[in-house]
Parts: sequence; C-alpha cells; structure tokens
Amino acid sequence: MAALKRFLIGRPLKSKELGEQKLNKKKALAVLSSDALSSVAYGPEQILLVLVTVSTAAFWYSIPIGIGVLILLTALILSYRQIIFAYPHGGGAYVVSKQNLGILPGLVAGGSLLVDYILTVAVSVSAGTDAITSAFPVLHEHTVGIAVTFVILITILNLRGVTESASILAYPVYLFAFALFILIGVGLHNIMTGHVSPNLHTPIGTPVAGISLFLLLKAFASGSSALTGVEAISNAIPNFKDPAPKNAARTLMAMGVLLALLFSGIVFLAYYLGISPNPQETVVSQIAKQTFGRNFMYFFIQGTTALILVLAANTGYSAFPLLAVNLAKDRFIPRMFTVRGDRLGYSNGIIILGLLSIVLIIAFHGQTEHLIPLYAVGVFIPFTLSQTGMMVKWIREKPAGWVMKLIINTIGALISFTVSVMFFVTKFPQIWPVLIFLPLIVYLFHRIKKHYEAVGDQLRLSTCEPVVPIEGNVVILPVSGITHVVERSLNYAQSLSADQIIAVYIPFEREEENRFEEKWNKWRPDVRLVTLPSPYRSIIHPLSKFIDTVHRKASESNYQVTVIIPQFIPKRSWQNLLHNQTSLMIRTYLLYRKDVIVTTVPYHLKK
Amino acid sequence: MAALKRFLIGRPLKSKELGEQKLNKKKALAVLSSDALSSVAYGPEQILLVLVTVSTAAFWYSIPIGIGVLILLTALILSYRQIIFAYPHGGGAYVVSKQNLGILPGLVAGGSLLVDYILTVAVSVSAGTDAITSAFPVLHEHTVGIAVTFVILITILNLRGVTESASILAYPVYLFAFALFILIGVGLHNIMTGHVSPNLHTPIGTPVAGISLFLLLKAFASGSSALTGVEAISNAIPNFKDPAPKNAARTLMAMGVLLALLFSGIVFLAYYLGISPNPQETVVSQIAKQTFGRNFMYFFIQGTTALILVLAANTGYSAFPLLAVNLAKDRFIPRMFTVRGDRLGYSNGIIILGLLSIVLIIAFHGQTEHLIPLYAVGVFIPFTLSQTGMMVKWIREKPAGWVMKLIINTIGALISFTVSVMFFVTKFPQIWPVLIFLPLIVYLFHRIKKHYEAVGDQLRLSTCEPVVPIEGNVVILPVSGITHVVERSLNYAQSLSADQIIAVYIPFEREEENRFEEKWNKWRPDVRLVTLPSPYRSIIHPLSKFIDTVHRKASESNYQVTVIIPQFIPKRSWQNLLHNQTSLMIRTYLLYRKDVIVTTVPYHLKK
Repeated sequence: MAALKRFLIGRPLKSKELGEQKLNKKKALAVLSSDALSSVAYGPEQILLVLVTVSTAAFWYSIPIGIGVLILLTALILSYRQIIFAYPHGGGAYVVSKQNLGILPGLVAGGSLLVDYILTVAVSVSAGTDAITSAFPVLHEHTVGIAVTFVILITILNLRGVTESASILAYPVYLFAFALFILIGVGLHNIMTGHVSPNLHTPIGTPVAGISLFLLLKAFASGSSALTGVEAISNAIPNFKDPAPKNAARTLMAMGVLLALLFSGIVFLAYYLGISPNPQETVVSQIAKQTFGRNFMYFFIQGTTALILVLAANTGYSAFPLLAVNLAKDRFIPRMFTVRGDRLGYSNGIIILGLLSIVLIIAFHGQTEHLIPLYAVGVFIPFTLSQTGMMVKWIREKPAGWVMKLIINTIGALISFTVSVMFFVTKFPQIWPVLIFLPLIVYLFHRIKKHYEAVGDQLRLSTCEPVVPIEGNVVILPVSGITHVVERSLNYAQSLSADQIIAVYIPFEREEENRFEEKWNKWRPDVRLVTLPSPYRSIIHPLSKFIDTVHRKASESNYQVTVIIPQFIPKRSWQNLLHNQTSLMIRTYLLYRKDVIVTTVPYHLKK
Repeated sequence: MAALKRFLIGRPLKSKELGEQKLNKKKALAVLSSDALSSVAYGPEQILLVLVTVSTAAFWYSIPIGIGVLILLTALILSYRQIIFAYPHGGGAYVVSKQNLGILPGLVAGGSLLVDYILTVAVSVSAGTDAITSAFPVLHEHTVGIAVTFVILITILNLRGVTESASILAYPVYLFAFALFILIGVGLHNIMTGHVSPNLHTPIGTPVAGISLFLLLKAFASGSSALTGVEAISNAIPNFKDPAPKNAARTLMAMGVLLALLFSGIVFLAYYLGISPNPQETVVSQIAKQTFGRNFMYFFIQGTTALILVLAANTGYSAFPLLAVNLAKDRFIPRMFTVRGDRLGYSNGIIILGLLSIVLIIAFHGQTEHLIPLYAVGVFIPFTLSQTGMMVKWIREKPAGWVMKLIINTIGALISFTVSVMFFVTKFPQIWPVLIFLPLIVYLFHRIKKHYEAVGDQLRLSTCEPVVPIEGNVVILPVSGITHVVERSLNYAQSLSADQIIAVYIPFEREEENRFEEKWNKWRPDVRLVTLPSPYRSIIHPLSKFIDTVHRKASESNYQVTVIIPQFIPKRSWQNLLHNQTSLMIRTYLLYRKDVIVTTVPYHLKK
C-alpha cells in the first residue's frame, strides 16, 4: 500500500518546500486557463445552435452576439484584474462577496462555485471523451470507462503536486492555442486571397423572419458559456510566484487576449464559411476540414481540442481545493479540507472532487452535455456577487481613482447579472435544480458552522463545564476464560492502584456459571468475580447493563469507571478473520455509548 | 437497523428454547429431501442426453441404466441408515471418514461437501429460475436478479430458524410428489388401457450400432446425478425430535422409497412414450404434455417442479451450517461458525452460504448448468469415503451382525467409488477444477488448525510465557491543544498514580513549537511536555518513534507504558465526518503495531 502510494504520488515533501512548488506565469497560464480556452471549442457552436432554430439566414447575428460576448469578456477581465490587486491572498467570489456583502451572499457564491467545479470536471472530461470516441467509434461503448480513467489520472497528477502537473499540462494548452492560430491564420489568408467563395454566408443586416429578442438573448446567454473559467486565476493567487498579484494580473490579461482572439476568429470563420451546426461533427471540425481537408493539420486540431477539453478539468482541480480551504478555515465545511497532503497539495479536496465528478459521470452515463447550462449559471451567479461586492468596497473605501474602478466593476456586475437573468428566463427547464441545491448547501454550511462552534465552546477551558475531580477508580475487566491475556490485564489493573477491580464473566449457559466461578476462586480468590448469565447469547447487552449500574454508584462519589479489555492480536492480519472480534465490538460500543474510560491491553501473538 | 432485523428475522430466542425448534418426521422429509427429490426433474433427462448422441434407438438402454441407478440408490440408503444409527449425533461424511480413516480423508470429504453445498444452492436456484423464465420469456433478461432474490429469500427464511422454514417448505415438496404421482398414475393407466400407441419406442434388447461401454458408463454416471442430496439426512440428525436416530432412519427410508418410485416412473414413461431430449422443453414437461395436454394439470406439474428446484437449495442451508459447526469445533475453519444467532440457527454459516452462492450465480450469469458434473463428483467422493469408513469401523468393532453390515457398506463403497471413477474418466473436462480446489481447501484447513493451536499455547497459563511483573507505569498523553478533553485526560492520568506522565505535542511548524510550550508551562508546569516537530505533517510517525524510545527504557526496569488518547465524541454520528479521525488512527496503529496499553478517554459532546 505505502509503496504503491509512493509510486503514484511521489515522496512526501516538507512543509517548508512549499515555496518551490509555486507557479511561474507560463505554467500558471497553462494550469489555470485550460478551462476558459477550451470553451472556444464549443462556445461559438452554442450560439449557432440557437440561431439555427430560426433559419440559416439568421447566422449573421452571430457576429453582433460575438461582439457582445467580447464586451462581456473585457468587462470581466478588467473587473477580475481589480479583484486580484484588492485581494492579493486569493480573492475568489466567496471571499469578495463575504467581506463586502455579508455571510449569506458569500456562501451563495462559494456554494455555487463548489458545485460548479465538480460540474466542470464532469462536463469537460465527458466532452473530451466524446471527441475521442467520435474519432475512434469502436471506443464508443467504453465512454464511461475512458472518462473515469481520465478523472483518475488527473486526480493522481494533482495529488503529485501543482508544479509537476503544470509541466505536463503546459504542452497541450499551448499546442491547442498554436493549432487554432494556424487554423484562423490560414482561414483568413484563404478569404483574403479570394480562395473562398463570398456567397457562403448571408450579408450582415439581412432581415430574417421569425427572429425575436428572446431568441437573441438566448443565443447570447449560450455564447457566454464560453466565458466559464475566467475566475480561476483570481482564486489561485497564492499559487503564483512572488510578486503574486502582479504575476496573476499579467497572466489574466494574457488569457483574456488569447481567449478574445481565438473566440473572434472561430466566430468569424464559422460565419464567413457558412458553417451550420451538425450533431455528427463539431463547428471547429467543419472549419478545419474546409480549410485543410482531412489531412495531418485536421487531425492535429482535433487531437489538441480533445486533449484540452479533458485537461480543462484541471482548472477545477486547481480552484476547488483552494475554495474548500477558504470555506473550511471559516468552518463552513469539514476541517479536513485544510490539511496538506504528502505533496503539499490539499489532497482531501482533490480526492473528493475526483470522486464526486466520477459519480456524476457514471450517473449520467458520460452524457453530461445537458449539464452545461446549469454549470454556466453556476458561474454567473458568483460573477455577479463578486462584482457587486467590489462596487460596495470602492464606495466604502474610496481609494485613489475609485470612480473609474467603480465604473468598471459596475459594468461587470450589470452584465453578469443580466446574463444570469437571461439564463433563468431562457433556459429555466435545465436550470431549476440550482434553486434547490443552492439553499440546501447554504443550510448545510450553517449547520456545520454551528456544530464547530458548539464543539469549540465545550472544549475551550474558558467556556466548558468544570472538570469533575476524580476521587477514586473502579476497574471492570470482562474475561472470557483464565488465560495469559487475562492474567496480564489483571496485573495491569492491580498496578494502577485502583480502588476496586471487578472481573466480569458472561456465560451463555447455566452450567458454565458455577464451573467458572469455582475455577476463578481457586486461581485468584482476591479479585471479585461477577457472572452475568446471558440466555440470549449477547455479550454487549448484559455487560452494558452492569456497567450502567456500576457507573451510577461510582458517580455518586466521583469515582471514575475504567473498563479494561484484554485483546490478543494475531501476527498476520488475515488471522483476524479466525477470531470473533468481540473486543473490538465491546470497545466501539462502550466508547460511543457510555461515559467510561476504555483501556485495551493488547497481547501480540508471536506465532 | 435493529428494527429491520427484528422484522426480517423475528425476535431473539433463548438458548433453552432450542428443543422447541426441532423437526418432526413430516417436516424433516420436506426440509431435507427437496434436493434429492428435485433431481428427478433432471436425472432421467441426463441419461437420455447421453444416449441420444448415438441414436434414438438406444433409448431402451435407459431401462437397464435406470435399474442400475435404483440399485445404487438402494445401496446408498441402506448404508446411510447404518451410519445414522452408528453416529446418532450427526454422522456426515466428514465425521465418519475422520473417525475411521483419519484426518486427511475426513478433510477431503468435509472440504468437498462444503463446496458442494454452495454449488447445490447456485445450481438449484438457477435451474428453478430457468424453469420460470421458460414459462414467462419476458422475464428472461432478469434471470440473475430473480435467482439472487430467491437466494436472499431462502437465506432470510433460514435465519428465522429451521422449523419456520420447514412449515413453508413442506407444501411445495409434498405438492411436487403429489403432482408427479398423478402424472405417473395417469400415464400408466393410459398405457394399460391401450390409449398410447405401443410403437413409440424400440423394444428392449434391440441391437444399436455404435453403442459402447464407455457411453453406457457415461450415461449411468449422468443418471446418478439424480442421487445427489441423499446424504443430507445423516448430517442433520441433531435437528430431529427425539428419538432422533430412529426418526431420521424412518425419514431416510421414506425419502428413498419416494425417490425410487418417482425416478422409475419418469424413466419408464419417458421410454414408453418415446420422449427425446429437447433443449427447448424438459423431459418431464414433454411427458406431462403428452399425458394431459396443455391444461391445468400440465401447469400444475411445471409450477411445482420449478418451485421444488428453487427450494432444493434449502437442503444446502440445512446441511452446510451443521457441517461447518463440526469443522469449526475441530478448529479447521473459523470459530464464528459455531455461534448460534438470535433465532438459534448457525447464522454465520447461513449467511456465508448465501453470499457465496450469490457470487457463483453472478459470476456465471445464472447459467450454472455446466457445474452439475462438478457438483455430482463432489458428492460421490464423500459418499465413497464415508462408506469405506464404515467398512473399517465394522471390521474393527465387530458388533452383533457385523458381517451383514460390512457387506452393505462394502457394496455402497464399491458402487460410489466406481461412479466417482466414471465421472473422472467420462467427464474430465468439466471436473478437473476439483483437483485444484480440494487440495487447496485441505491445506487451508491445516493452516487454520495450526494457527488456533499456536494461539491456544500462547494463551493457556500452563504453556504460555510467564507474565512479566509490572514494577511501575509510564503514561504518554498526546495533546493537540489545551482543551477540556486534555484536562480530563490529564486528571485521569494523575489519578492512576503513574510514576511518570509525559504530554506530547506534535507541531507542524517551528513557530507553533515555542508558542505551545509557553502556554503549557503557564497552565500545567508540573507535567512534563515533549514537543516533536513534524516537517512532513505526519502525527503517527514521530509519535511512534517517541513511544519506541520510551518503551525501550521502560522495559529495562519492567515499567509498563500506557498511551492515553483523549477523544471527543460528537452527539450525532454524521458529525464524525467533520472531525479528523486522528484519535482513531493513533489507537488502531498503536494497538496493532506497538506493545503498549492504549487508554481512550472519551468526552461525549452534549450539543
């Protein structure tokens, strides 16, 4: 077990090696932007999918809608840039909303992001797997298996630590960007040199029958699903090399520019080439085929697209554990999420994220596409909350140049809010679950917090009940026969100078009772023996009743009751199967049910 | 949980209520003979299946082969009758072989029967399920689910206790016998009154081209698979009402007569009506259809056949736990098989049998038919061994009339041995696994026995190492802070008049170390504090090394080391998720790895 763990995860790292694990800008861009960049692979398609319900003539609307998405992107990038500098220790939507708007908005933002990262992993890995199984149809029946394997691999990479995963992840992200730039470049070159017929598309401004504002809004909302993932960098500032905020801000800008270029390029080519969405083939694949034909470049583009979709899941792995740490530090989720593993990653968060997304993949048989709207709205709710939080912050603090800052965040907040509302209005049938699980999660957060506070009060010396002084000790020793282990336990009990020692024997049949009492009185007449006949062959039940009686009497004079349980431990663990686990059962029962101290005297068998 | 168990299994019974659970003859016949009687449903068909490989003209050989099987049956019944009286406390093949032939033959017999009962359950339930799904083809895709459900139901019935299951089981067994008697009676009546053409079959003695001795032996071996299950009664004598041996012997005779009549009737009708085996329809079904047409009687016969096949599994449930008790009393298998459950049945044996047969059913997708030869040979090996054992017994003891007894058991042994050899010769491709798992099981039996003996020696006061006297006590108290639980544990440690108390604190970072030492020295300067910095953030590792050091020093002067572990226990069990289970981990690690006494001081949270 230990060797396997070492092989998969690597040697443990010392706490002070933490600094060495931090990210430079190039690696950070790879780790934190794969989610955002990969959405270029499906964002433009989402717009066309809505427009095609009217007619292909409506496709020219993708240009103004695309411009709208770019404006939204610019607003978000500028807003998040301000957040990075204002919250250099990691300003996720949770922290920003909590500090400026209050606990409840903070928890709503945190809760929806937490769920969202799980969706990110499930949706991205499933989409990537689909890309692969489309290329190799024989693999189609193994979709779930392949997707789960990917999740497991990514989980292991992340457990090894964030830098090492970055080294591996850097290639596909840059390859993907490189491939798409070539595609867009060659595409534009073909258009400008007149190699493409200008009649494939309807001119911008052509009137279209049946187009409605509702439909355009729906198309815009769908297109803005390409912006999921832009918040990842602002959550992960502590992972950057110093000066962290500056490096993070530059990485954010680089990502914004990349995303804007790729997105506009794909939207424009799709429009100019008159691409129509097709369930058998993605829009990117159609553009690539028309531009290159089915040659090496086509497969290069398809391959890097599949790869980056799978790796987009990694954004979830960077962001989820950090958000979980913030929530756990505030005691809204279990404390175990704050513990660093052997490789200094927050292993519990990584493992839980992997497990939950595997559950989602299996539950939806790897067809998680219809979770996309749910996942997009789960991003825009915290977007809105954190921008609103920043507005409140600027108004309250009024730093130098605050008016400009306020304007930027206000625009960000308004657009995000509008998009959220559009999602609810145009895609309610896919989005309603958010109205159930969000309140549920927030309620759970509160319950957990309350529990931790109650525990704290009961443990803290200044607030807990006073400790009862111990005036004396009563020892109860259950015995199953006269053996070496019993003798050792008895000697131990006597060495503790307890005030009273009671051996307890539980016979299942009447005859055993007298026989054992005789034997005992011959062996150790100085130790009091109590026999508790058990006609129903239960050991716990009569023992528990007896302990209650002793405990009641003992408490009257502040005596402490200790139950000493002899246990012999076989040399090899399979041998445990050969012995009734009575000692273990008694110990567990007493610890959880009775207010007695439980002492186990082990006897390690030597053969 | 407890309520569910009570509902399914019934209220617990006192040990002395055991007598009331015993079987009268009528119920015993039902419980213990369903396996043997149900084989009438497939035994005759097995003979025809071999003969048809030559030609339908060879079917007349089923009559002499049937007579051979009847002779074998008579020999077995008479032999087992002698075993019942010789071993009134339950003379399974295991006991008889062990006492007369030695440990190894006993274990071979016991081991093959143990596996056989699991096969009985899997094969019978699958066959019964097939009968049902043949009648209702829509159910076909649910074969495994239906079979598993049946096993679960039978397991629950048996956990409720043997008499109650008998009451339910009595009806189908008697209905099945009744249905077949009507079928045979009406069939014979039709033949005698000339309603059946006498030309459907070839006359006995017709020469058949291509028939060989090998083929006839194979047919005979196949037919004797109808005799599996006749040993069940001799294993289960302790389940009978007094006088147990006499009642058991009468039940055995009744079962023998029933089995002989039904078997001969079906073989004869199949021959006379010229029935040919057909993968779509069983032989019994064909006879019934020719005799009655597809009317109520036909469905009655098919229904009771399906039912008895499923219930034949119950024989395994009666026999397996009793055999397991015998093996466990001799310490060849884990002792837990000797423990009676709430309803006085040997629950562990019942549950293990149910689980293993479910595993077999799932592994073979409910198609366990090709396990039949394996299961038949697994019966004839112990048959041979127990008859040989009886021969040795008579020769050694020479009681009144021993020559006759010796002759009967010798015939039994010879025939059983011959059948076993025939199985190996004619059906080796299906039977070879027995040559692997039988030695494996016997080896396992020996390993287990050796372990129990070693444990006994180490625990028994007369043979174990002398107990080391305890000259003093050292207490180690790992602390995670200055809290109520730590204060209670410290008070407890002090009340034990230990010679030395050492509090241990394990900081993950250097700064914590000094801060905590200062706080501690203000709070309890009288108690020695040791801090063990842990740069790799492990608690177990530094603690374990420290305990080793203390333990080494303490042992030099016969001091006993006790580790006191403070543990707070949340009010509700889900709240355990919110706390790192460090106490539990430390306790488990220390108990299994170190020779120290572990004391847990629980603190039950009140809110």
